[in-house]
Amino acid sequence: MNLRARLLNIQAGGKNIAILDDADASSLGVHSSDRVKINYQDKCAVAILNVAANFPSHSIGLYEETSRKLGMTAEDAVEVEAATPPESISYIQAKIRNERLRENEIMSVIRDVVERRLSDIELSAFLTALYIHGLSMDEIEALSKAMVKTGSSLSLGKKPILDKHSIGGIPGDKTSILVVPIIAAVGFTIPKTSSRAVTSPAGTADRVESLCPVNLSLEEIRPVVEKTNGCLVWGGALDLAPADDLFIQIEYPLAIDPMLLPSIMSKKKAIGATHVVLDIPTGRGAKIKTMGEAGALAADFIDLGKRLDMNVQCGVTFGEQPLGNAVGPALEAKEALSTIMGNGPVDVREKAISLAGILLEMVGKENGKQIAEEMLKSGKAEKKLREIIDAQGGNPRVKPDDLAIGKERASVEADEDGLILYISNEDIAKIAKQAGAPKDKGAGLLLRAKLGDRVKKGQIILDIFAERSTKLESALLLANKLKPLGLSKKPEDRMLMERIPTVAVHKKTFILER
Amino acid sequence: MNLRARLLNIQAGGKNIAILDDADASSLGVHSSDRVKINYQDKCAVAILNVAANFPSHSIGLYEETSRKLGMTAEDAVEVEAATPPESISYIQAKIRNERLRENEIMSVIRDVVERRLSDIELSAFLTALYIHGLSMDEIEALSKAMVKTGSSLSLGKKPILDKHSIGGIPGDKTSILVVPIIAAVGFTIPKTSSRAVTSPAGTADRVESLCPVNLSLEEIRPVVEKTNGCLVWGGALDLAPADDLFIQIEYPLAIDPMLLPSIMSKKKAIGATHVVLDIPTGRGAKIKTMGEAGALAADFIDLGKRLDMNVQCGVTFGEQPLGNAVGPALEAKEALSTIMGNGPVDVREKAISLAGILLEMVGKENGKQIAEEMLKSGKAEKKLREIIDAQGGNPRVKPDDLAIGKERASVEADEDGLILYISNEDIAKIAKQAGAPKDKGAGLLLRAKLGDRVKKGQIILDIFAERSTKLESALLLANKLKPLGLSKKPEDRMLMERIPTVAVHKKTFILER
Repeated sequence: MNLRARLLNIQAGGKNIAILDDADASSLGVHSSDRVKINYQDKCAVAILNVAANFPSHSIGLYEETSRKLGMTAEDAVEVEAATPPESISYIQAKIRNERLRENEIMSVIRDVVERRLSDIELSAFLTALYIHGLSMDEIEALSKAMVKTGSSLSLGKKPILDKHSIGGIPGDKTSILVVPIIAAVGFTIPKTSSRAVTSPAGTADRVESLCPVNLSLEEIRPVVEKTNGCLVWGGALDLAPADDLFIQIEYPLAIDPMLLPSIMSKKKAIGATHVVLDIPTGRGAKIKTMGEAGALAADFIDLGKRLDMNVQCGVTFGEQPLGNAVGPALEAKEALSTIMGNGPVDVREKAISLAGILLEMVGKENGKQIAEEMLKSGKAEKKLREIIDAQGGNPRVKPDDLAIGKERASVEADEDGLILYISNEDIAKIAKQAGAPKDKGAGLLLRAKLGDRVKKGQIILDIFAERSTKLESALLLANKLKPLGLSKKPEDRMLMERIPTVAVHKKTFILER
Repeated sequence: MNLRARLLNIQAGGKNIAILDDADASSLGVHSSDRVKINYQDKCAVAILNVAANFPSHSIGLYEETSRKLGMTAEDAVEVEAATPPESISYIQAKIRNERLRENEIMSVIRDVVERRLSDIELSAFLTALYIHGLSMDEIEALSKAMVKTGSSLSLGKKPILDKHSIGGIPGDKTSILVVPIIAAVGFTIPKTSSRAVTSPAGTADRVESLCPVNLSLEEIRPVVEKTNGCLVWGGALDLAPADDLFIQIEYPLAIDPMLLPSIMSKKKAIGATHVVLDIPTGRGAKIKTMGEAGALAADFIDLGKRLDMNVQCGVTFGEQPLGNAVGPALEAKEALSTIMGNGPVDVREKAISLAGILLEMVGKENGKQIAEEMLKSGKAEKKLREIIDAQGGNPRVKPDDLAIGKERASVEADEDGLILYISNEDIAKIAKQAGAPKDKGAGLLLRAKLGDRVKKGQIILDIFAERSTKLESALLLANKLKPLGLSKKPEDRMLMERIPTVAVHKKTFILER
């Protein structure tokens, strides 16, 4: 069917979409979500159809992505025909029916994801089915490999390449900012990529950005690592596993994360890692609730590592409260910098040297934790962090007090004498976000009391920082409503711990807490 | 945040979508798929966000649906803020986790579906989860009621109101064109709404359209039914259960149908039906494969009927081959007209009087099938059909030969002597669609042999009709490739019937065969 292409001059968020009027769609014999093949001169593009009432008849609307593919710069006649759906849809349907997918079938799905041949409807059904049915290790391996294959890779031409990752979920977890320089200071290579916050008040990339630029390209990373042994960059623009970035866009509104293992491990593989330590924060308020679940997940990570030719060990860490005292990009960068200079909270320091120690022992060092501690004490880790900051384009002489913290401040006091019995990770994250994090770099909070601390009535237990007074007010309001720090005079008065079904039972395949 | 609204003057297929540039989205602290609230003068609208690179900065793109809601006719400044997601998303997440939803939770989901507050991602996850986990009868009841409540209804102010429905899947099933006039001729009221083809070569609305207009409004149906006791109209424009129409748009690309029961029964309830006969075609090549599954589904329909205050009975019918000989809109209308005039295939006639008989007995008549047969023999059913055609605006004197059948014709011959051992519903549908059905009204096919017939080598077993020679050619090619009629000289030579896992095992919750 010959139609006039109308250039909409709008992007469809990367998707290949075309618009047809009701009547034209019907005479072409196609419905919304069907594919059409658009032929223009010697080029052709397949687009997913959106049928609209009242679109100009005998014309087809093309979003920028599609018109670019056709090399079209002015409105012109095109030939449009119904196209068959990609084969990968039959594999998505098979997964909905709980069939196991083979390697070539998974490759077909991932390739179509990356080439934007699948609609949001199809991607959402695929991820929902994966979440509900779970994945076999063969499927996880095939997904990881397909995600690496369809993306870019970094090859530094040397071995070993060390790496560290956390499955996340703990506010204030700035461990990587210490682990990377510790490892690099010992002399090992650790090209660390991190994500920005999606639902949390700060991702490691957001934290590091308070110290130096993090938006480096793959080619820009190379000289940094060659010079310093390490880097601390944002992974999002590196195209390391582009399928994962597209999956995350679908998982985000649903708050599900069925691709946890392939998502993490494909990016480690793409960066060339040979030895990976994986942090699994565990406990109430963490993504993983029990040691049993943590052990099962760790076994899967280790198995997947073997299948991908990577040596993986896991650290199961205490995850029932935020790490350190600071939550929010600049506040956390400040705390990390203080800690590497010898003045930070004990838990941040302890977690960093424990995980760095595992990594060092994985590559043959004895007493890894002791070596890591020595890197801190001697100032070598601090010196290395400053080298990395310098190489990435930041100020190597930055002092903790140089980092701009929100000028709007408020405090929350304990409303009775007592013992801090719990701290809600979820509520702490909510309050920090209400204060403006991660967008407002200086926004966030400082915990002035942690689990097990005894506090007096009227004592400050939480400081809130914001860049705007309205945000400070609403964060303070939220803090007073949520009471993220739980106090009790007598724990023995609280023998009833949970009333079921008030509290949901968490399964191994968890749902992200937003 | 103050932004300039850019009117895109394009519909987003009914969805409330707005576009923001990367940078603006980031400073507003929102991501793709988040909601934004747009305030303009005294109006506000919530839209789902699509983040694009390169959208003009400090502006927000509004599709027609959203600008209309804001009453905006020219570009102007608007106030935009992040909005919280609708509560129904938490119920969708609960369903993904296999929790049972309560009535008010389902109402919340359905209301948000109808008011277009949910994205394709969320709808797809919901339907996929329903398909995988299945629905309880309480959930099915709540869905049906919510779908009726959020749509229009027909109230004829009398009782009983009879209705007939098929779960579909059988090519050539033109039974309704006979059942409606039979019931109406006896004197009972039967306001029948039907669908158009989505994946099949013809829906009943497409068939009837060869005889008379079917696009009547609810108000136009009333005088037709008052005058003739019946009607045969398209249900799609009646807004009877608009949630279902939106679900179908999502189910279609996935080829799943988790809402079969609420979808059918909500529309019966909305039309005011008190007595419904439900056709469940069963067997190989049908949606339902075994008598056991048919019985289970029938029990669910009957139970749901009771919950919705409708008397339901089911007819389990033979579904292993197309009904009658004709497949395709005009060919089927012609066959239905011939049958009601006394000259059609026996199976069409037999199925129609059987189902009409059940309906008549449900409202107190004895020997229902005999009465139905009498309506055919006496010519009363034909007279009634012509009254209905007349009342809906068609030609009441239409003759079978008046219906325009495709001029392009080809035939398929038996390539050996033998017995017709099977006929593939799926392949027959594919060939008819390849010939141009349902878009080309005159396209389709005629089966010249049915199950159990003995044929000679060279004997014509299939005629194909098309309106265009290219379509005829490709349909003929497909027919010769698929061989939809299976022949065998000696059935006893074929003792091995299936090789597993070559043939998928079908479960009760079936997948539509496309």
